[in-house]
Amino acid sequence: MFIHMKELQYHARPEKPDPIFAKKLQEVLGGQYGEMSVMMQYLFQGWNCRADQKYRDMLLDIGTEEIGHVEMLTTMIAQLLDGAPVDQLEEAAKDPLIEAALGGMNPQHLIVSGLGATPTDSVGYPWNSRYIVASGNLLADFRANLNAESQGRLQVARLYEMTTDPGIRKMMGFMLARDTMHQNQWMAAIAEIESMEGTIVPASFPRELELQEVSHQFMNFSEGEESAEGRWAKGPSMDNQGKFEYVAKPQAMGEKPVLTPAPDFTFSRPGALPKLTNESSKAGKGLL
Amino acid sequence: MFIHMKELQYHARPEKPDPIFAKKLQEVLGGQYGEMSVMMQYLFQGWNCRADQKYRDMLLDIGTEEIGHVEMLTTMIAQLLDGAPVDQLEEAAKDPLIEAALGGMNPQHLIVSGLGATPTDSVGYPWNSRYIVASGNLLADFRANLNAESQGRLQVARLYEMTTDPGIRKMMGFMLARDTMHQNQWMAAIAEIESMEGTIVPASFPRELELQEVSHQFMNFSEGEESAEGRWAKGPSMDNQGKFEYVAKPQAMGEKPVLTPAPDFTFSRPGALPKLTNESSKAGKGLL
Amino acid sequence: MFIHMKELQYHARPEKPDPIFAKKLQEVLGGQYGEMSVMMQYLFQGWNCRADQKYRDMLLDIGTEEIGHVEMLTTMIAQLLDGAPVDQLEEAAKDPLIEAALGGMNPQHLIVSGLGATPTDSVGYPWNSRYIVASGNLLADFRANLNAESQGRLQVARLYEMTTDPGIRKMMGFMLARDTMHQNQWMAAIAEIESMEGTIVPASFPRELELQEVSHQFMNFSEGEESAEGRWAKGPSMDNQGKFEYVAKPQAMGEKPVLTPAPDFTFSRPGALPKLTNESSKAGKGLL
Amino acid sequence: MFIHMKELQYHARPEKPDPIFAKKLQEVLGGQYGEMSVMMQYLFQGWNCRADQKYRDMLLDIGTEEIGHVEMLTTMIAQLLDGAPVDQLEEAAKDPLIEAALGGMNPQHLIVSGLGATPTDSVGYPWNSRYIVASGNLLADFRANLNAESQGRLQVARLYEMTTDPGIRKMMGFMLARDTMHQNQWMAAIAEIESMEGTIVPASFPRELELQEVSHQFMNFSEGEESAEGRWAKGPSMDNQGKFEYVAKPQAMGEKPVLTPAPDFTFSRPGALPKLTNESSKAGKGLL
Amino acid sequence: MFIHMKELQYHARPEKPDPIFAKKLQEVLGGQYGEMSVMMQYLFQGWNCRADQKYRDMLLDIGTEEIGHVEMLTTMIAQLLDGAPVDQLEEAAKDPLIEAALGGMNPQHLIVSGLGATPTDSVGYPWNSRYIVASGNLLADFRANLNAESQGRLQVARLYEMTTDPGIRKMMGFMLARDTMHQNQWMAAIAEIESMEGTIVPASFPRELELQEVSHQFMNFSEGEESAEGRWAKGPSMDNQGKFEYVAKPQAMGEKPVLTPAPDFTFSRPGALPKLTNESSKAGKGLL
Amino acid sequence: MFIHMKELQYHARPEKPDPIFAKKLQEVLGGQYGEMSVMMQYLFQGWNCRADQKYRDMLLDIGTEEIGHVEMLTTMIAQLLDGAPVDQLEEAAKDPLIEAALGGMNPQHLIVSGLGATPTDSVGYPWNSRYIVASGNLLADFRANLNAESQGRLQVARLYEMTTDPGIRKMMGFMLARDTMHQNQWMAAIAEIESMEGTIVPASFPRELELQEVSHQFMNFSEGEESAEGRWAKGPSMDNQGKFEYVAKPQAMGEKPVLTPAPDFTFSRPGALPKLTNESSKAGKGLL
Repeated sequence: MFIHMKELQYHARPEKPDPIFAKKLQEVLGGQYGEMSVMMQYLFQGWNCRADQKYRDMLLDIGTEEIGHVEMLTTMIAQLLDGAPVDQLEEAAKDPLIEAALGGMNPQHLIVSGLGATPTDSVGYPWNSRYIVASGNLLADFRANLNAESQGRLQVARLYEMTTDPGIRKMMGFMLARDTMHQNQWMAAIAEIESMEGTIVPASFPRELELQEVSHQFMNFSEGEESAEGRWAKGPSMDNQGKFEYVAKPQAMGEKPVLTPAPDFTFSRPGALPKLTNESSKAGKGLL
Repeated sequence: MFIHMKELQYHARPEKPDPIFAKKLQEVLGGQYGEMSVMMQYLFQGWNCRADQKYRDMLLDIGTEEIGHVEMLTTMIAQLLDGAPVDQLEEAAKDPLIEAALGGMNPQHLIVSGLGATPTDSVGYPWNSRYIVASGNLLADFRANLNAESQGRLQVARLYEMTTDPGIRKMMGFMLARDTMHQNQWMAAIAEIESMEGTIVPASFPRELELQEVSHQFMNFSEGEESAEGRWAKGPSMDNQGKFEYVAKPQAMGEKPVLTPAPDFTFSRPGALPKLTNESSKAGKGLL
Repeated sequence: MFIHMKELQYHARPEKPDPIFAKKLQEVLGGQYGEMSVMMQYLFQGWNCRADQKYRDMLLDIGTEEIGHVEMLTTMIAQLLDGAPVDQLEEAAKDPLIEAALGGMNPQHLIVSGLGATPTDSVGYPWNSRYIVASGNLLADFRANLNAESQGRLQVARLYEMTTDPGIRKMMGFMLARDTMHQNQWMAAIAEIESMEGTIVPASFPRELELQEVSHQFMNFSEGEESAEGRWAKGPSMDNQGKFEYVAKPQAMGEKPVLTPAPDFTFSRPGALPKLTNESSKAGKGLL
Repeated sequence: MFIHMKELQYHARPEKPDPIFAKKLQEVLGGQYGEMSVMMQYLFQGWNCRADQKYRDMLLDIGTEEIGHVEMLTTMIAQLLDGAPVDQLEEAAKDPLIEAALGGMNPQHLIVSGLGATPTDSVGYPWNSRYIVASGNLLADFRANLNAESQGRLQVARLYEMTTDPGIRKMMGFMLARDTMHQNQWMAAIAEIESMEGTIVPASFPRELELQEVSHQFMNFSEGEESAEGRWAKGPSMDNQGKFEYVAKPQAMGEKPVLTPAPDFTFSRPGALPKLTNESSKAGKGLL
Repeated sequence: MFIHMKELQYHARPEKPDPIFAKKLQEVLGGQYGEMSVMMQYLFQGWNCRADQKYRDMLLDIGTEEIGHVEMLTTMIAQLLDGAPVDQLEEAAKDPLIEAALGGMNPQHLIVSGLGATPTDSVGYPWNSRYIVASGNLLADFRANLNAESQGRLQVARLYEMTTDPGIRKMMGFMLARDTMHQNQWMAAIAEIESMEGTIVPASFPRELELQEVSHQFMNFSEGEESAEGRWAKGPSMDNQGKFEYVAKPQAMGEKPVLTPAPDFTFSRPGALPKLTNESSKAGKGLL
Repeated sequence: MFIHMKELQYHARPEKPDPIFAKKLQEVLGGQYGEMSVMMQYLFQGWNCRADQKYRDMLLDIGTEEIGHVEMLTTMIAQLLDGAPVDQLEEAAKDPLIEAALGGMNPQHLIVSGLGATPTDSVGYPWNSRYIVASGNLLADFRANLNAESQGRLQVARLYEMTTDPGIRKMMGFMLARDTMHQNQWMAAIAEIESMEGTIVPASFPRELELQEVSHQFMNFSEGEESAEGRWAKGPSMDNQGKFEYVAKPQAMGEKPVLTPAPDFTFSRPGALPKLTNESSKAGKGLL
């Protein structure tokens, strides 16, 4: 069960409206790696959590915080839209700057939401739940979370470059700091789990059932060997169970596949004679 | 430019057909974390790569390998579908096992693809490119890749439990081993980048511009403090720039938002009088 | 079965081309609440209708009218696109107004549809059938319809503000009037059904099976009680079966959930030992 | 800002696991009219609210409650999945009931979420934000909300019929009661707004600008006149501004559209000669 | 403008209900190549048509017919769903056949549409408008149409095999015949256009601007030359402008791409120092 | 299995950056008929191919070539994005040309991909696999392929008009030529199959089971008979099995559908009394 506090977690007030930036800012609200994604990802991971209560609690703590981040962003966007110059339409025909403002906006900010934030990204594409994952495996999911916070902080940093409004930058300064913490948090949680069960997900699948001869080979599927220069191509493997090996010319280990011909009932075999497989067709035919 | 070898990278031949398992196996072909996702993710990261050639080459090597994994899975699925009992429809009315086989199949495997694999997941949902990311930031993207290989290997392990067909398990034993390598590979690549620029993405955003007082605080947004027990709540932060702090009762730092009233031109203000803002309306009106 | 008349239901001729407005106008053609939505919603409700023939007929009458509205909008958009200045590309490099026109257009209007309307909204997102509902319950569906006509007329009114072209406004004056009728129509149909069975959907679910003690309580899930001021917080309930009650501090009535640990076969339990559950794995293993 | 209470708003504990019902129950979690939809719809309407604070507060109160309903449903589904018989795979080959359970499950409940609820509907389709609306116009949005609660309660009632598990029915008895309240609530809020500004959305668009001669006409777009029998076809209109009129044979009021021929630069005119419009092509041609 | 006739174009009455087949039949209603697709494709092509009126009329004639086909399919599906055994739930627990019927149904046919057809395909995926095309180029679009009728008739033929119900087969016998006509129709229309302007789309792009040395080469991008055996590898080209040439070992004609390094403002260059590019950041920084 | 060559198949180097054109060029990379579509369509058709090896080989040859076309386009787009003027933000406030460049870009090219190509179309909509088909029937699929190459070449031709950059035009000159070949190729393959089995897909469905009296009728579903003027309305049918017939006034051949009333368990019958169908409800009720 949840309770709402009316104050925002942090300030979300632009110095002045900017409907074009409002469109761009939608990316970190409703985009693939926006706040809606981390909010829903952490909440679902928490609600589904079958592990120790401290993990469930931690996931729901951060998920609950993220609802508040979605709230800050919607509030910011609504205020940025205050400057939409629809009522200056006649001016716009003459003034290219007003026209540009109208043209650079997301038209749905006017037509659909009436100057409100929308649950979409910076090109207007709706948020959808295939953006998130809650696999039940903590190590896998914490890696998903670390990725989400990395992509998210990167996007906020890029948006920081794209505005000079002090109010927006102030809110972003807060979000960047929380993303710093959240990257720290997931690294810490990952370290804790890896210390228990190693680094390969899932840890509890018996390793002897995999084809271990290829478990540490880097395969060079191209002409040229620049890829031999990385840490991934030599030295002990990161799971401490072998050594990286560079395979310069990987060979096919499988067969050349030949599928059985299409059966008649798929009507796909070139040159096959007309034929219905289900005998009852005669009855059907009679009815026509 | 790419070249095709007719042999598969590894064996992909089931002992016997199993159209119901074919449906399930689609998840690791065309699902959120299936082989199509890693194939397209690595290829786009490689093609867009603006860093040292060894990264580009490495990304395209593994991306090229993954095209071959998609090939193995489609081949396997097509063979599993050989047992679709459509031609035994009259038997099915009497034999619940045949009926179950028909009922448990993905109907599109019969109607749409005619016993071929489809570019969809285990519930028939189409693959789409919002599953993948290529941000240009190597550390962010390598974390995305480590996550993808972790979720992917987890799903293959679960599917391994769900069949006992030796041919399918053989192919999965290969895929599990390659996923082991690929998790190793991304961990190695991550370690290499982190040793250059630290652990927080993006490294080149000036840290003093974020609100550093909240950069290492875990905020407990719930009643009860189970979440205080984790590595994320105490000790040095993972970025070595501070110490984790547990905030048991986080306080709102922002204002209570009050938005300006809706302008007339949105037709959204309750109780507003009828009014058109653009004066030219009179002309329009005259035309009606 | 349907028949086509070649005349439009009403005039759809702009005074002059305006490819930027064409993009915006797409919202009421192919958007969430555009004409394609009401057309398909009413047709499906009509075709599926199991109630009295007058409802089926009424639904199909209005659905058939809406096909004609889609026709009017596509016709209007095609004419607005006549002004696309692609052939003035060299001028565009010099003239910011031509450039703006090219920039403000939906690029698919040039590349994909060749100056034709597209079945998408104002940001180019395709229409999809999850926009509509046909539940079989008339009261529920008529409420969906009243909502659709309300959102739709609101969007047309906003677009009316965004243009001063007399031809477009003329067509919109017709559409606004029909939306007025259609709001009236659904209110009338709702009143008719509510007079038969009351206001709560579905009426035929036995009310004694719901937890009636919370059937009329407004729960205040926030600090502060501004929400106590509305009609929903006091006085007789709208279903005439009780009185609204304002619960200032709602209490949890449920348990703190603790899920059972993840079983081994999900490979999700932290720290579990490697283990395959299906015994047949030994056979599989042998094959590797 | 939000706070989490660890107790559920109401009990969510099934008497026994039922992974097939878990799949069906997903509809009211992540479907078009599931709890995720009302949660996000009310939160966005509240965050974007530019009207009196009591509306904002009311919207956020109910939105916050709905987060708790999503929590109840995920909890219930996770427990229903406890009975997934993957570890009885060898039995399943022999026992059609176990096989049926495996076959009737959503495969992603095993492969992707590891016995957790997913943010999808009963056919596995992901939730997306085009399910919701926040237009800024209170009357329009409250009608959307009344519709959502009507469709939602209808779906819960149908699911109630589809199970006899007392624990599930208990939770549903609570949800049905809250949906009763929420239908009441939106009817009350609608009544309050309609008493201020009338029944047609948007109220503040000048009625004289619409083509009022068709504002109260029901048009019979079919052969046969069953549709004349309803309240929508005669008597005073619901907006009290006219009388319903039944038009038995509606006539086209518009022109037969003839579009201008496709310009050369679209390469669409049948039989046109090869021609490039942009003169600079010669330069381009030279480079080939 | 459109008019509705109450009779169906052809009979759509199953001999007996079959809710499992109803699910499968959805494919040709709301699938990628279902009747909704051809209906919307032809209507949009017709409404956007800028060519001779006979093409517009022909497109709208067939588009109007297809609305009637959608009507027939929804009617058929609704009747197939009459046998949904929800009211026999207690029996289902004991009788595997009833259970199978419940399990094999699309759950949304019960929960969402209440025994009505849905605008989705056989796995419940919603119809969307990216299934269709209306490019403005008649030859391109007629080829799209011929493809749609080919895929559509193939799917109906497969479904014919999957049922023996005489009523369903009767309706399908009609649909197969119309699809035969429609394939004929598009071949005729294609022949008419090709006789005017040749076979390559678009005809009016100047051929000398393409790199003609590769306009008739089949390139063998694999080891082994089975692909040399086809009509496409030798003999005169189909456009009568050259001869097919088989290139056994295609060579790269382009450069090895090296992209410029990522600029600082993307925060993507590995090892770059912290740096904000926009100078105004100092102001922003001061505000934090 | 696949191998990567580091050189591009053809040159992909613009004369100068143009981030606005980059957005438009995305259409032929990740749009409905972009290179990703043909790449995946041909690969899936090849992998699933159950016919003669020459078809499989041919399909995989061209599919492999198309991977290289995707590579060329991503490379081109990345270079076009080099001119994104983010670092000139302060200038942009003053210079409308820089502002226009920022405004006309796809914002995700900056925020999400950091100056890289994205797997989306020109409005930012993600590629999805419902764009493609692999039905197993060669004739149907080759028609899909001919359509794809026709739409694709048309779009490239339109984009050719929209730029005068010699580098882009050079690459397009190559792509246009390959599309010419590929249209030729599919026409050749179609001719080969049609010579074996005729022109109607699927050929092996028994023609006597379709309602042959309507197999060659053009039905005029409109007032006016312009559509009688085409090749499709008279003369021998294209399948050489009959003669086209023009039906000026098509008559309904089916019944007026009347569906059975909604059963109680759907809670959809207007005016029905409250009633639960499953008797076990009493137990459930007791628990509330």
